[in-house]
Amino acid sequence: MVNVVVNGIGTIGKRTAEAVKKQDDMTLRAISDVSQNGGLRTVLKEKGALHGTDLYASNEDGKENLESQGFHVEGVLEELIEAGEVDVVIDATPPGIDKANKENLYEPNGVKAIFQGGADPEIAPVAFNADANYEKAEGKDFVKVVSCNTTSLSRTMSAVDEAFGVEDAVANLVRRGGDIPQDGRGPINSTIPVTEVPSHHGPDVQAVMPDLDIKTLAVKVPVTYGHVHMVTANLEEDVSEQEVLDAFDGQPRVRLIEAEDGYDSTGKVHEMMRDLERPRSDMPEAGVWKETVTVEDGTAYWIHMVHQEAIVVPENIDAIRAMFEMEDKQTSIQKTNEALEIE
Amino acid sequence: MVNVVVNGIGTIGKRTAEAVKKQDDMTLRAISDVSQNGGLRTVLKEKGALHGTDLYASNEDGKENLESQGFHVEGVLEELIEAGEVDVVIDATPPGIDKANKENLYEPNGVKAIFQGGADPEIAPVAFNADANYEKAEGKDFVKVVSCNTTSLSRTMSAVDEAFGVEDAVANLVRRGGDIPQDGRGPINSTIPVTEVPSHHGPDVQAVMPDLDIKTLAVKVPVTYGHVHMVTANLEEDVSEQEVLDAFDGQPRVRLIEAEDGYDSTGKVHEMMRDLERPRSDMPEAGVWKETVTVEDGTAYWIHMVHQEAIVVPENIDAIRAMFEMEDKQTSIQKTNEALEIE
Amino acid sequence: MVNVVVNGIGTIGKRTAEAVKKQDDMTLRAISDVSQNGGLRTVLKEKGALHGTDLYASNEDGKENLESQGFHVEGVLEELIEAGEVDVVIDATPPGIDKANKENLYEPNGVKAIFQGGADPEIAPVAFNADANYEKAEGKDFVKVVSCNTTSLSRTMSAVDEAFGVEDAVANLVRRGGDIPQDGRGPINSTIPVTEVPSHHGPDVQAVMPDLDIKTLAVKVPVTYGHVHMVTANLEEDVSEQEVLDAFDGQPRVRLIEAEDGYDSTGKVHEMMRDLERPRSDMPEAGVWKETVTVEDGTAYWIHMVHQEAIVVPENIDAIRAMFEMEDKQTSIQKTNEALEIE
Amino acid sequence: MVNVVVNGIGTIGKRTAEAVKKQDDMTLRAISDVSQNGGLRTVLKEKGALHGTDLYASNEDGKENLESQGFHVEGVLEELIEAGEVDVVIDATPPGIDKANKENLYEPNGVKAIFQGGADPEIAPVAFNADANYEKAEGKDFVKVVSCNTTSLSRTMSAVDEAFGVEDAVANLVRRGGDIPQDGRGPINSTIPVTEVPSHHGPDVQAVMPDLDIKTLAVKVPVTYGHVHMVTANLEEDVSEQEVLDAFDGQPRVRLIEAEDGYDSTGKVHEMMRDLERPRSDMPEAGVWKETVTVEDGTAYWIHMVHQEAIVVPENIDAIRAMFEMEDKQTSIQKTNEALEIE
Repeated sequence: MVNVVVNGIGTIGKRTAEAVKKQDDMTLRAISDVSQNGGLRTVLKEKGALHGTDLYASNEDGKENLESQGFHVEGVLEELIEAGEVDVVIDATPPGIDKANKENLYEPNGVKAIFQGGADPEIAPVAFNADANYEKAEGKDFVKVVSCNTTSLSRTMSAVDEAFGVEDAVANLVRRGGDIPQDGRGPINSTIPVTEVPSHHGPDVQAVMPDLDIKTLAVKVPVTYGHVHMVTANLEEDVSEQEVLDAFDGQPRVRLIEAEDGYDSTGKVHEMMRDLERPRSDMPEAGVWKETVTVEDGTAYWIHMVHQEAIVVPENIDAIRAMFEMEDKQTSIQKTNEALEIE
Repeated sequence: MVNVVVNGIGTIGKRTAEAVKKQDDMTLRAISDVSQNGGLRTVLKEKGALHGTDLYASNEDGKENLESQGFHVEGVLEELIEAGEVDVVIDATPPGIDKANKENLYEPNGVKAIFQGGADPEIAPVAFNADANYEKAEGKDFVKVVSCNTTSLSRTMSAVDEAFGVEDAVANLVRRGGDIPQDGRGPINSTIPVTEVPSHHGPDVQAVMPDLDIKTLAVKVPVTYGHVHMVTANLEEDVSEQEVLDAFDGQPRVRLIEAEDGYDSTGKVHEMMRDLERPRSDMPEAGVWKETVTVEDGTAYWIHMVHQEAIVVPENIDAIRAMFEMEDKQTSIQKTNEALEIE
Repeated sequence: MVNVVVNGIGTIGKRTAEAVKKQDDMTLRAISDVSQNGGLRTVLKEKGALHGTDLYASNEDGKENLESQGFHVEGVLEELIEAGEVDVVIDATPPGIDKANKENLYEPNGVKAIFQGGADPEIAPVAFNADANYEKAEGKDFVKVVSCNTTSLSRTMSAVDEAFGVEDAVANLVRRGGDIPQDGRGPINSTIPVTEVPSHHGPDVQAVMPDLDIKTLAVKVPVTYGHVHMVTANLEEDVSEQEVLDAFDGQPRVRLIEAEDGYDSTGKVHEMMRDLERPRSDMPEAGVWKETVTVEDGTAYWIHMVHQEAIVVPENIDAIRAMFEMEDKQTSIQKTNEALEIE
Repeated sequence: MVNVVVNGIGTIGKRTAEAVKKQDDMTLRAISDVSQNGGLRTVLKEKGALHGTDLYASNEDGKENLESQGFHVEGVLEELIEAGEVDVVIDATPPGIDKANKENLYEPNGVKAIFQGGADPEIAPVAFNADANYEKAEGKDFVKVVSCNTTSLSRTMSAVDEAFGVEDAVANLVRRGGDIPQDGRGPINSTIPVTEVPSHHGPDVQAVMPDLDIKTLAVKVPVTYGHVHMVTANLEEDVSEQEVLDAFDGQPRVRLIEAEDGYDSTGKVHEMMRDLERPRSDMPEAGVWKETVTVEDGTAYWIHMVHQEAIVVPENIDAIRAMFEMEDKQTSIQKTNEALEIE
């Protein structure tokens, strides 16, 4: 059993820690942080999702801090690592801190680590997406799981590219302004263009799929649950809409959403996740609106949504299995999906 | 075991049906509706919250309708009632239809029924709130569970009124524009005053607490999770803030929320419910922000929030126990709370 | 002097009526409507923008209606037309009504008419955009001014197409949910994909620019001021960014907006219009964010915004001049721009 | 003619500078600031509202800064003051800076100054509202114009208090999250209680009306145009609704808004201001929804809205007239209202 620590219990950290707990071939040894945030107090409560998990401080200052906030802290993460009780750290700390952690804590102690989408691309030799390039992470010590937007594009693009070949693609992103609890973030009534054109999301996808010709533009809007992408892809083969739908259907983490059943917006998909009683109303799948999948004159179009808080969670789990060469790609994805009840 | 049917599987109906399933002294015999809406298809799916429940049509037209939408329908609700398999119907159909149901279906067949907050006050002899007037529903055939706003005011007001006496009170309501999936509702960037002044919410509370002198005003704003009430109550006794806090703490469905722990908005309380992995991120408690509870010169002030989709769910369960005289008030509230994991 | 009546005083109607008043070569003979809406009462007030204008009823029922609402009504529009006092009607009534007006009122009486973007394409032989196809409207009896989204795309696309040739283009639209006063429209916190893919906006542009190969996708988001378009255009010539900027700069109704001056969102552009004391904070120009204009490998990218309430107003004025062959295209555009203080 | 400088050209500063320009008994000698913000560049443009006004730097650093941003700067404010060309400064700089300005610049040079609602109450001996206490500012060197919320409460409360006497009052505030251009401010989908209970707005009103017994609570919501207040006031006299309406009607800066004419929300009132072609769609009046004015059992209720950007502008103008004893209260209010087209 691989011993896992999640360092940084924010939006991504708390979810990946819970996901690790649900696997049968890895153990959540501990979580660590430096202060109360992102619901640390709540997830550790009696009915919280991480109740009973050992809490470590990421560093000495953090220990003092957490204890002054009333937390019971088992010790400092470095001690746990030095005691040989940690095989891999999922690092979900803010950009910059992740790099320092790698250099000062993980690398010197010979502990593997997984970093998140905001990390510097140089932090790891692999930009990871399970379906697109699982094999590249096999045996690696450091892996970066790409961002939520990149993950969704990698999933949908790799499905179509593997099936029919993509000549070139344009994806335009409509990003959420902030997450549900992020009251401090706007805008309230405004659309904000990303003035870096084309945006960084294209090159980000190319870190996963180097041969893909993709350009992206982006704006930010006042919603809290879900980015939406509008995609236009010129295909190498002449295919039917049904074939494209089949390619998405065969992708293990793409969900086809039927607008005609009433699920014709991000708000309604959010409600679908509530009706499925998914924890936190999360949707780890990329959701492609079925009715938007269209092919005309060799060009495929579709619109998909990305639940920004959840989509990378299963990827972190698969990254662990790849790094320890525990399972092959198909088996790992299937195990993770079953444990997380991804259909 | 009391056999329960929930008629009308919308926002309230789907939640109360799930709540009935979680009790050990009543059985969800069936659900009924007339067409796909409010996630009927999703809750009946393999991973849906009501998977496996018998689906009946509320009437003959509904049967045809549902079958044309691909549902397996066991029959028409009237048949099930006539077969003697229904003890009580939780009616969560739209106002007007509930009344017709009472007159044409429940009353003629001698079946008890519970109605919801939107129903005509004349529909039942009791306007019900478990904590405030459980006993009044004992043995009754028809009970109306009051609306979300009224429920929250009844809970907090009865806690304070029973402890110290309320001379008179002003409560001003900031209502949500629509629920999470209700994209068709606005406003987008506007505050809408309720021009009926004082608003109907005061008399609604008085249906539960006839001796309370309370006046209310209301506005509507562009949020989807939670109404917020600002309350000013002149007390009959001179008390301390701690005593008011204790009164709230002793109310079994009021939750004290600590803003200083980071829960200083409805969005952050929503996240707390997610971190507690409450189904659908629901909060059936009324949430009083602890820091807002203040007493000055015999006047108590507080601000509380109401999760409009969930707060009446436990009240429906208690109403069943009262109507069948299954348990006394305290026991019923405790049983419901435990089953629904209300702390 | 051409005598103009504006029929239908809603969002577009009230603005075009005001614009007609500001021209020196046409007269606002009257406005007409059937009931109070869109601020009819306010614009006719002492300080309102249309104070003193003759109000006619669009039909007999409307006359009764308006009079019962306290308006002074000069008569019924048909009477004014029959008296020979109307040369052209700007019809800004809802789709369907515009068609009936044409068939029953304008055509039989030999009066010219201009219709708006929501009208059936068959209503007029010309889909009009001043810069793109002014000449096609010359001498015509019926002209349709295309919608706000189409107008903005026609302006930017024709600027680039005339200068360098556009091989093909993708434009993805982020539409506003409703206008400032439309409280009844949502969504509050949701992004809604247009499931018609590609969307109708591409063919709409082709009604103006038949040879343009353009595909569009669209979503709707919770903002009230401005649509935003993300555009990718493959050019026939290899050009520099500066050349594309110059092409936009030369288009008389495209405004280059500098994000680096602080105008990096639709909300901030709205404020710019307020600081320029534009009437109603309107922006009749299409606004291209200068920093987003990029050329890479023969592909041009840009992001522009559209003030949905105002952009078609100057087009209606130019349509009148074309239909009566009063001025050539350049002169008409210049006269309209000066009168409306478009820089 | 009194020579006025406005120091700090943000939301309040730019509007008061424009208002000064519109008076016939004072001169806008100059504006001053330290950097581009709040549309400084735009208001000075050819079509901007302050085109042609002399721009000074508030200090030496500001001069360098503004010049590096391409502005033509006449000099440093202190020089202008020392040259004897300034009689009064309207200081609309951020809190803290205003105090330093008073101590280092205005007081030593014997220049009068007016401060804004965010300033420390100690900054001036008078908390000013024209209708409520004009006389107290007569002859004073330093005056603080109270905040937008306080101004609206002072106007409505003084109208009712002067007419009938207010025993005690509760006002609950629903505040906007940010102004139109403030994209960086949230919340997006959340209601935020002000945990200081009762809130500071009550004592703020008492700075203007020391004998008024008023308590306030407040929340913040995701809208950009207008705060809304729900008010309950116990009166000393038994009066009719019409008498209260008459009292509001007689207040020179309260506007009665008719919901039944379609103006039943802040968004629709915003549109009314656009239809009146008010500069920037501003509403300097407090707007009381007529239908909400109710009297029951000696208690008056009403709901009013506050355009947070504009309401204090006329108060700044009247403050100047009071400080220089140019006119009596009624004359000053009337002159200001006429110049600003306040009906």
